[in-house]
Amino acid sequence: MVKKIEVGILGATGMVGQRFVSLLERHPWFEVRWLAASERSAGRTYAEACNWRVREPMPKAAGELPVDECKPGHAPQLLFSSLDSKVAGEVEKEFAQAGHVVVSNSGNHRMEPDVPLLIPEVNPEHLALVRIQKKRRGWKGMIVTNPNCTAIGLVMSLAPLEKAFGLEKVLMTSMQAVSGAGYPGVPTLDILGNVIPHISGEEEKVERETRKLLGRLVDEAVQPGDFVVSAHCNRVPVEDGHTESISVSLKSKASLEDLIEVWRKFRSLPQERNLPFAPKHPIIVREERDRPQPKFDLAVEHGMATVVGRVRPCPVLQFKYTALSHNTIRGAAGAALLNAELMRAEGYLD
Amino acid sequence: MVKKIEVGILGATGMVGQRFVSLLERHPWFEVRWLAASERSAGRTYAEACNWRVREPMPKAAGELPVDECKPGHAPQLLFSSLDSKVAGEVEKEFAQAGHVVVSNSGNHRMEPDVPLLIPEVNPEHLALVRIQKKRRGWKGMIVTNPNCTAIGLVMSLAPLEKAFGLEKVLMTSMQAVSGAGYPGVPTLDILGNVIPHISGEEEKVERETRKLLGRLVDEAVQPGDFVVSAHCNRVPVEDGHTESISVSLKSKASLEDLIEVWRKFRSLPQERNLPFAPKHPIIVREERDRPQPKFDLAVEHGMATVVGRVRPCPVLQFKYTALSHNTIRGAAGAALLNAELMRAEGYLD
Amino acid sequence: MVKKIEVGILGATGMVGQRFVSLLERHPWFEVRWLAASERSAGRTYAEACNWRVREPMPKAAGELPVDECKPGHAPQLLFSSLDSKVAGEVEKEFAQAGHVVVSNSGNHRMEPDVPLLIPEVNPEHLALVRIQKKRRGWKGMIVTNPNCTAIGLVMSLAPLEKAFGLEKVLMTSMQAVSGAGYPGVPTLDILGNVIPHISGEEEKVERETRKLLGRLVDEAVQPGDFVVSAHCNRVPVEDGHTESISVSLKSKASLEDLIEVWRKFRSLPQERNLPFAPKHPIIVREERDRPQPKFDLAVEHGMATVVGRVRPCPVLQFKYTALSHNTIRGAAGAALLNAELMRAEGYLD
Amino acid sequence: MVKKIEVGILGATGMVGQRFVSLLERHPWFEVRWLAASERSAGRTYAEACNWRVREPMPKAAGELPVDECKPGHAPQLLFSSLDSKVAGEVEKEFAQAGHVVVSNSGNHRMEPDVPLLIPEVNPEHLALVRIQKKRRGWKGMIVTNPNCTAIGLVMSLAPLEKAFGLEKVLMTSMQAVSGAGYPGVPTLDILGNVIPHISGEEEKVERETRKLLGRLVDEAVQPGDFVVSAHCNRVPVEDGHTESISVSLKSKASLEDLIEVWRKFRSLPQERNLPFAPKHPIIVREERDRPQPKFDLAVEHGMATVVGRVRPCPVLQFKYTALSHNTIRGAAGAALLNAELMRAEGYLD
Repeated sequence: MVKKIEVGILGATGMVGQRFVSLLERHPWFEVRWLAASERSAGRTYAEACNWRVREPMPKAAGELPVDECKPGHAPQLLFSSLDSKVAGEVEKEFAQAGHVVVSNSGNHRMEPDVPLLIPEVNPEHLALVRIQKKRRGWKGMIVTNPNCTAIGLVMSLAPLEKAFGLEKVLMTSMQAVSGAGYPGVPTLDILGNVIPHISGEEEKVERETRKLLGRLVDEAVQPGDFVVSAHCNRVPVEDGHTESISVSLKSKASLEDLIEVWRKFRSLPQERNLPFAPKHPIIVREERDRPQPKFDLAVEHGMATVVGRVRPCPVLQFKYTALSHNTIRGAAGAALLNAELMRAEGYLD
Repeated sequence: MVKKIEVGILGATGMVGQRFVSLLERHPWFEVRWLAASERSAGRTYAEACNWRVREPMPKAAGELPVDECKPGHAPQLLFSSLDSKVAGEVEKEFAQAGHVVVSNSGNHRMEPDVPLLIPEVNPEHLALVRIQKKRRGWKGMIVTNPNCTAIGLVMSLAPLEKAFGLEKVLMTSMQAVSGAGYPGVPTLDILGNVIPHISGEEEKVERETRKLLGRLVDEAVQPGDFVVSAHCNRVPVEDGHTESISVSLKSKASLEDLIEVWRKFRSLPQERNLPFAPKHPIIVREERDRPQPKFDLAVEHGMATVVGRVRPCPVLQFKYTALSHNTIRGAAGAALLNAELMRAEGYLD
Repeated sequence: MVKKIEVGILGATGMVGQRFVSLLERHPWFEVRWLAASERSAGRTYAEACNWRVREPMPKAAGELPVDECKPGHAPQLLFSSLDSKVAGEVEKEFAQAGHVVVSNSGNHRMEPDVPLLIPEVNPEHLALVRIQKKRRGWKGMIVTNPNCTAIGLVMSLAPLEKAFGLEKVLMTSMQAVSGAGYPGVPTLDILGNVIPHISGEEEKVERETRKLLGRLVDEAVQPGDFVVSAHCNRVPVEDGHTESISVSLKSKASLEDLIEVWRKFRSLPQERNLPFAPKHPIIVREERDRPQPKFDLAVEHGMATVVGRVRPCPVLQFKYTALSHNTIRGAAGAALLNAELMRAEGYLD
Repeated sequence: MVKKIEVGILGATGMVGQRFVSLLERHPWFEVRWLAASERSAGRTYAEACNWRVREPMPKAAGELPVDECKPGHAPQLLFSSLDSKVAGEVEKEFAQAGHVVVSNSGNHRMEPDVPLLIPEVNPEHLALVRIQKKRRGWKGMIVTNPNCTAIGLVMSLAPLEKAFGLEKVLMTSMQAVSGAGYPGVPTLDILGNVIPHISGEEEKVERETRKLLGRLVDEAVQPGDFVVSAHCNRVPVEDGHTESISVSLKSKASLEDLIEVWRKFRSLPQERNLPFAPKHPIIVREERDRPQPKFDLAVEHGMATVVGRVRPCPVLQFKYTALSHNTIRGAAGAALLNAELMRAEGYLD
């Protein structure tokens, strides 16, 4: 049996940090050995410092680890980061400078030209940007990021369409779960029996990350995808799972059946390399008239698939459909994990 | 003091029927004197037959009325109908043939060429269709309808734009309340903490009613509006209030400020005639970044206004915004009431 | 027209503070002229400083008031306090020493022997304790308190039973609304679709406040009621309204009909004096088999009544029933308001 | 490998029927071979006839089975019944007369003197009643029942106390999940953000079943337990899991620690016989101050354990605590399954 790679978590006590701890419990390649959080938590055990909100119980070994401050020194080389955006910018840079590989779920560095914004099924070749990043910044370490939890389900469903037919226009309205706002996050008095038609900065993130993710790496930079994207983002009283109503128009001719076929056939590098967290079927197409639904379709492929349904013509654009993605697994901790698996498989962790 | 007009309600025990009873309690022109429902309820008092679900208590006088069968005979001339679509088609025709004025919230007759589909602020001139209806069908009575609860908020917000700038494209994604499905309606096990991305027949209704409502009466028929509409309809765990994320493109040039101005200035016949149920401001524009919300904005103008907010550019179409409308007041019972008020003011009840 | 008494609010930006502002908008005797909150809010207008969460819109006049720090100086003599318990102890004392009449909803001083813990319908005579308080503490001002939001519904329903038959044992299980925890209060991730069987300190408060409220003023102190109380307190996903399942045994013989009769006939000093916020019927008895319910029974008597139902024999104690009370109106801001009205009517504000 | 016993399900399309199908998917002893439901469903495949509401996907093999009418003939000898109480009485008798072993979750026969009402950990010896049943009724088959979903969590927590210290008084207030009402069950408009303080017939069932379950088999009948029980039953907006606030007084002296110890040590026949569905620890005691909670504690022991917490003195009775039990697993389908496992282990299926 091969020795596991030791990993650490920056921001371990937050909602996404907890997901990292939970998902890594039995990971075949990685092993959690170091947990860091704010000064308030430092010095206590993880079990003491953390208000555990994941339904599955806290892994015993993690509970006994001490919580460290977010400073290089005792940290392993490979780090997952789910730091709050208020501090992630500086702290992640500090770790990368100090030689760490920071696989981050935070939004701060995503749009920097030399930072890969990665979905392993969609744009694995963007990983090559880290060479430019290291060279340009003179770092021994590096920062690699995954997209916003709303962008990821959208882009997973768009990628096969872009490849097969070319995208022209994308209009997406999201109905987002409260877990996307972290903990304590959304107050019950705000959302119980309510819809909040605004999530700070979310629409801008979705619009610009989508085009970077579906862009092409030309020379030493990503050329954003040649299509327009518009996002309406809403919060609804759902615990987990972002549901998206999507309309698209395509560059070349396609039928409803063509869309369904390219989705069903979609496989990519993570599937070829058989990465541990890669869903066997990255996109699941449901044919019932009222699916996908967060209640019934989130658990498929351990939360790593995007579930698509209700594919039909759109009188304004060309096609419309509904997509569902697990926002704290595929949209956060699972996304970063798969990024790290890709990096190892491609030799970036050696 | 003028004698009130006696009215009856077809389908009085359902959710919309209950709203009629509640809203009519202190109406200055109309007085509920006759209640009809299915055979199962007939013969009991309204208080006995009805599982009252409106938060305001049942009006005492209505509770003591006997429930009749849905057959002409004892019914007053003016009837509000909220019959189930399974029976509304035949029953409403029977009453209109027998000389009754049926002001209906049911969907069955809405798209018939000689039946007015009416929003008094939007297309009061369509009311003239009843003359053709009576002539063509040889009826002494008539049927007048109001639109689907999702179409109404959309069209209220579109009407001033259509008039000022011309509509080209409309894409709407709804997040609809459970009360729209009636009672018992949506099972808790289906919707608690969930989103259902499908409501049977709803998208088709919204797409086609919107164009009829914004169409022009030419000769003896309505020419549908010259624009395209696409609707995504979703159910969310909200009790009352349909929230809609809307993108539009217009025929002539306009700025965000222009949109806000035409909405704020929008007044129409019901406001001029000072109809009892007419909202003083049919469209309320909120400037906060996270409004409208069902929890806070439904009660304004007694549930008869459409509340609009988050007006901003749309990268795919031209503008995007959020609209909110009370689905069982402005979207159902209140809509029919205002139709009847318009009919009286315009001399159609004489 | 008599000149209104100027009042101030300590803790004006919190949930209960907002209720004070809302309920006082059209009060016939009192007028809000001074608002105070934490340093963070001080210096801004109320509209700027306050994240308004009450469904009714913020009163315009209040929105324009500046928010002051919680320090005597510019404050009017009569103050309503809904300060956080972390600071209420010291701050309220400071104001009382400086000559202010502090009518407090905070828990800090409730159990002090010379502080009246008051429900005007239940123990108006306890108000006399303030004379002892002023004498003993050498204060020009005074502190008067109302009970915990869970105790108040319980005690309202118990008071007529204690008076008519004597109480022996009381066992209460509460299902409490999230608004009781203030704002931001309960995180959605904690309570959506969940029950939390614990509210910090709540059971102890209910058990001991109930006995003080139903105690007798003997010489210069309150002798706690001669009965035992046990409370189970639970949080449920309800916005407003505490529902309580109550079992009691009584000292003298009574029938179910006797209970219902003493509840229905219950009137007290606030009703006799016709105080503005006094419910005409302090206790409403519902006879349906499934009432009271927060959704349908909270609005009765403007949220100031206790609604009782399902009265039936209890095999373990003697009787059981369900009681419902509005936790932020009768259980907080409305309770303090009624206390102040009683104080004015009894000459304590002269 | 031993051949599995073929089983059928009466009422297979209902919520509990679906749970049977789901739980039996990989059962080591039993195999679903026959599914029956109302005439409306008969003749279609299970996948067609059933509106599947369990979160786990429908087992493929079950989906392909035809749905039969509820008539003996093609049914296997061993049947699980989750028939609606309107028909269960007659249909179950008919099958038992025809020689079938009916293991029923329905309430109809539970209180008949010769029908075992069984919790395998609590009163396995009551199973002997079926000998009297067969003799007295002249049946080749038999009916065995499990208790109501609210009684079962209560009685699981009481059984070790009754055995060790003797019960004197029990007062229980439930906060019950909507899944207990079946499908479509509770309308969203009734329960979203609400509490309903009444469930038809539930309190009577809990009070009388608890005493039968904890009764002694003397001669040929069960002598009900010698203690009093009072139940308050409430519905809350929770999907799965009944939470119960319980107060008890005991016949002999015990400390809080004694209670916790007898709960933790509690093992019974199903554990000794290592029955497949038996929880290893029938009672889990949590020591946090705010547990158990439906959101976090339902999954333990696959939904077959009762989770107890907040054990503390009760000023009115003697002790109080909170108990949680999964209402459609341990409280329904899982309960019947464990009954059938016990029957096989004890030779009742030979």
